[in-house]
Amino acid sequence: MGIMSVMFALKHLVPDEERNAVRDHALVVPLTLFVAVLCLCLLIGHLLEENRWVNESIVAIFVGCIAGAIILLISKGKSSHILTFDEELFFIYLLPPIIFNAGFQVKKKRFFHNFFTIMLFGVIGVFISASIITCGSWWLFPKLNFLDLTVRDYLALGTIFSSTDTVCTLQVLSQDDTPLLYSLVFGEGVVNDATSVVLFNAVQKIDVSKLDSRTLRVVGDFLYLFSTSTALGVVAGLITAYILKALSFGRHSSVREISMMMLMAYLSYMLAELFELSGILTVFFCGISMSHYAWHNVTEISRITTRHVFATMSFIAETFIFLYVGMDALDMSKWRMTKLGIVNLMGIYSGLIFLILLGRAAFVFPLSALANYMNRRSEETPSITFKHQIIIWWAGLMRGAVSIALAFKQFTYSGVTSDPINATMITNTIIVVLFTTLVFGCLTKPLIRYLLPHHATRATTSYEEETTEPVEDMNLPLLSFEESAATNISRAKESLSMLIESPVYTIHYYWRKFDDAYMRPIFGGPRANNSDC
Amino acid sequence: MGIMSVMFALKHLVPDEERNAVRDHALVVPLTLFVAVLCLCLLIGHLLEENRWVNESIVAIFVGCIAGAIILLISKGKSSHILTFDEELFFIYLLPPIIFNAGFQVKKKRFFHNFFTIMLFGVIGVFISASIITCGSWWLFPKLNFLDLTVRDYLALGTIFSSTDTVCTLQVLSQDDTPLLYSLVFGEGVVNDATSVVLFNAVQKIDVSKLDSRTLRVVGDFLYLFSTSTALGVVAGLITAYILKALSFGRHSSVREISMMMLMAYLSYMLAELFELSGILTVFFCGISMSHYAWHNVTEISRITTRHVFATMSFIAETFIFLYVGMDALDMSKWRMTKLGIVNLMGIYSGLIFLILLGRAAFVFPLSALANYMNRRSEETPSITFKHQIIIWWAGLMRGAVSIALAFKQFTYSGVTSDPINATMITNTIIVVLFTTLVFGCLTKPLIRYLLPHHATRATTSYEEETTEPVEDMNLPLLSFEESAATNISRAKESLSMLIESPVYTIHYYWRKFDDAYMRPIFGGPRANNSDC
Repeated sequence: MGIMSVMFALKHLVPDEERNAVRDHALVVPLTLFVAVLCLCLLIGHLLEENRWVNESIVAIFVGCIAGAIILLISKGKSSHILTFDEELFFIYLLPPIIFNAGFQVKKKRFFHNFFTIMLFGVIGVFISASIITCGSWWLFPKLNFLDLTVRDYLALGTIFSSTDTVCTLQVLSQDDTPLLYSLVFGEGVVNDATSVVLFNAVQKIDVSKLDSRTLRVVGDFLYLFSTSTALGVVAGLITAYILKALSFGRHSSVREISMMMLMAYLSYMLAELFELSGILTVFFCGISMSHYAWHNVTEISRITTRHVFATMSFIAETFIFLYVGMDALDMSKWRMTKLGIVNLMGIYSGLIFLILLGRAAFVFPLSALANYMNRRSEETPSITFKHQIIIWWAGLMRGAVSIALAFKQFTYSGVTSDPINATMITNTIIVVLFTTLVFGCLTKPLIRYLLPHHATRATTSYEEETTEPVEDMNLPLLSFEESAATNISRAKESLSMLIESPVYTIHYYWRKFDDAYMRPIFGGPRANNSDC
Repeated sequence: MGIMSVMFALKHLVPDEERNAVRDHALVVPLTLFVAVLCLCLLIGHLLEENRWVNESIVAIFVGCIAGAIILLISKGKSSHILTFDEELFFIYLLPPIIFNAGFQVKKKRFFHNFFTIMLFGVIGVFISASIITCGSWWLFPKLNFLDLTVRDYLALGTIFSSTDTVCTLQVLSQDDTPLLYSLVFGEGVVNDATSVVLFNAVQKIDVSKLDSRTLRVVGDFLYLFSTSTALGVVAGLITAYILKALSFGRHSSVREISMMMLMAYLSYMLAELFELSGILTVFFCGISMSHYAWHNVTEISRITTRHVFATMSFIAETFIFLYVGMDALDMSKWRMTKLGIVNLMGIYSGLIFLILLGRAAFVFPLSALANYMNRRSEETPSITFKHQIIIWWAGLMRGAVSIALAFKQFTYSGVTSDPINATMITNTIIVVLFTTLVFGCLTKPLIRYLLPHHATRATTSYEEETTEPVEDMNLPLLSFEESAATNISRAKESLSMLIESPVYTIHYYWRKFDDAYMRPIFGGPRANNSDC
């Protein structure tokens, strides 16, 4: 519908005689081209599956670059505008399926098991990383003759380069061999995406002139956004679960069940955007609560279908984005606008990449130590070894679609800018994304193979495993509690000491009791305590 | 991508200060609203599933009308423009999944079995119906003081009101109880859609001033479009099947298989549009060849997922369209433009509805007789009884989304018109669609119950049955041929007499032999001859 009102705007820009041409070709040619290139990406990605250095993102970026170059040659440098990145398309159509799928497919048991550590990395980590990158670039850029950025630009820059892209790391980590590592990297990736977007929006609202009195407002805003967005997502998931259960949708048609889940998920995202909350957090928690409750209320066929169709939509959206980044890298107009010399530009690029490395190291190692300290008493959770810390550090160095989208939001109006400073910032972002994805991405498989030699052999199938194995066989330490709790008194004492010694587990334990007693009877889901909650 | 370039256009229309508001709300508010209303439709449709009079289309139109009225009240008559129907959205995003799903889910054995009859109804029928409606309105409209339509407008009008919408008939016909009837109604519905669109495009290209010498060109154009579009669709399906089989996509990931099938189907449609062929025919035959070959080359999980996800996408697109029609019915600006009195308008509406009834009767009964005459020798095919003929006639009386889309294409620029004649034609179309869908649609269930009393009890689950039962148990008469064919000479004689007596069966028989011997080994699919070909 938005599209329509917009199409209407376009048509009135075009003189009468040209209308038919526009109507026939304005959408058809680029769409055909894009779908064809997407198919090509899929094909090449599949053929290079076994390759040691390459992953899906790298293939998509490369194919995008080549396609962009061909288009540029054919149109003699004119058509870069058709392929301009539009952050509206990204935030409204491409991001929701990716994030929803992340929530839907996440192994909730492990995610909540490591909830504390994930939150440390994903929330506190982004704050640390963003401040280091902001301060570092503030100090560095003027020295490289790159002036005129505002305070708000520097703050935005910190969040832009703090959002990670862990897709290609997840492709080489095995969920079954290294459950802790996989869960931490995956969980941090999701929370990090959400935090960056929320922080970015909070930073944009700061009144820079009154910075002293309002610094704390950012934290307050952040907490408010985080809690309301989460609540909205969970409620949307619960409503869906209740509707599916109470009205037994599957009785007539699994098509309706699947439609309902898709539409409600999207509705939760759009509602969050409407209320100016974080759609990304909402849709993530909507995914979690849907797979925890709603998914159990549908027919077997709908379960298989939803699990795979969400994965497919997410996959297509991701490939689309990387293809896009590859094509947009050749938008010549922005490159021509930059007024800096090659030496200064190189300085900026390497400075930014160094800051990314530093900013991430500054929180991964200290926060890992903190997490290990917090979990020191619980024998069930293995501590994060130094090798694991290196992998976590490395896994978050890639910058991806979220960085690009935020950069376009900050420095352009819908992908168009006439200001040399802004154009330079866009090209900086593209260079950093290309460099980190290509160079760091290529080195990920060898690095993991070097650090975890025994896992590397079965690494390539992890994506498929993640999506096809709903059954978990991890032995949850929680189960042992139930046996030992003989009487109420001893249980109460135990609970108290548990809460002091390992707060996360205790919360988890009481949550499960509450879930079994009240939530699942209302909203659906198996009540056996060894299921995949 | 088209969207992006268009968004770009929009942003430049808006002054700087308003940009943020536009960016935040231009898409979010209408999308949220629309998705919410879609969810509501689903819910109400489910609750009214058992109802005797109502079907999905009627629910969607009603909910759309109510939502439109509420929006109109809130915005005080201003916001009808946001909800303007856009035929580009329809032809590029909504129609392809519907038609592809029709091809993908059609029971090919039965479809090709009745191929001759379906083609009679779907192609010759549209020509007959369109000429009757064109001539009738040419005679009628000037008498009702509705002048100034061009020859091309009258020709377009004939095709606009010849495209049927059989969704609600299919919901009440049972595929298992009345296979012949179901197959004829379903097959005609698909071919009819394609024929109307192709004929509409052919008519638009006619040079009216040289009508005498070029009348035959329409037929030639039509045959050319029909054959090339079909070939493109089949080739796209075969390429997909070959890629999936040769590269064993399923080895790594069923997500890639599903993506590949979706993207290739869409690519075939877009390529057809690019080459100015009929995308609707292409994607229909792409669906048929994909489900015949490609579907057998993927993993079991992908089979279940594709079957249901295509049905879901088609379902959402259909609901979307009817919702849209309901909302657009309240576009007040067009109603105010009409200069005709209420009596004349009523005359036009009833005249059009009478012409639709007449135009359809004029081909269903004669062509049924012809089909019965052609099939008189083949004892296996039951002839079409008079009761069945009435149901076929009735089933095609509803006018739906294709009519609306074609009307908007002929009489507006992207849903906007300032000409009173054009505005009247749009409101005429909407009234006819609403009337036929509501009145004829409501009477369908009772009519079928009256004519076929023993089938009505199990009628409501046909949609689900259609999508979940890939296995067919219909005894094909062809199988008996193979046993009787002992020697080559006797077989050759038999073939010749077969070809004369029942050409469709003979072609079908040789096609199966060719398929088993050459096509399936290359493109995949089971070679046992009792499978669902």
